[in-house]
Amino acid sequence: MKRICFVLQVKKHRLEEYKLRHKQVWPEMLQALRESGWRNYSLFLREDGLLVGYLETPDFQAAVDSMARREVNRRWQTEMAEFFDLGGEHADRAITPLEEIFHLE
Amino acid sequence: MKRICFVLQVKKHRLEEYKLRHKQVWPEMLQALRESGWRNYSLFLREDGLLVGYLETPDFQAAVDSMARREVNRRWQTEMAEFFDLGGEHADRAITPLEEIFHLE
Repeated sequence: MKRICFVLQVKKHRLEEYKLRHKQVWPEMLQALRESGWRNYSLFLREDGLLVGYLETPDFQAAVDSMARREVNRRWQTEMAEFFDLGGEHADRAITPLEEIFHLE
Repeated sequence: MKRICFVLQVKKHRLEEYKLRHKQVWPEMLQALRESGWRNYSLFLREDGLLVGYLETPDFQAAVDSMARREVNRRWQTEMAEFFDLGGEHADRAITPLEEIFHLE
């Protein structure tokens, strides 16, 4: 398993709605993530909108590509796009993993 | 186990040295972290110095307090303080966990 961390910025005036949406993620979206190898996946939000994602997966590029091929992910990302300042780009295409500089099992 | 994520800012001109130091964390510091309940603990660094910490622990406050009582942690944090803009405050005292808004096992 590889450990992956990424950071995005949620629009500050949309934080509460973004949080609410993530209490109600569609079951078929959760299933797609599982099938695509997203494990122990968490999202954390700072009060200013800084969003941190953490997951564990055997192959991150394969996990992203698997989601990118799925209709449910396209629908989800289209609905989520308005929460980010990415000019309409889907957030899952804007993910750049940070460098892991330390790990303790 | 609770999942904890925190964010700090490393001085941009000290990133390489900070990374190097984390390839050589003292064995007694690693042991102190283990004994204090820090599990699956990673640090991730963005190119601009944004530092993300992720760990799993039964009780985060207890994990922090256990480290705070240890001499090895005081020595480590004193050496690390110069990498942060915290006015000399130890980074482990500046940690504020972010809100977890989503989790998938």
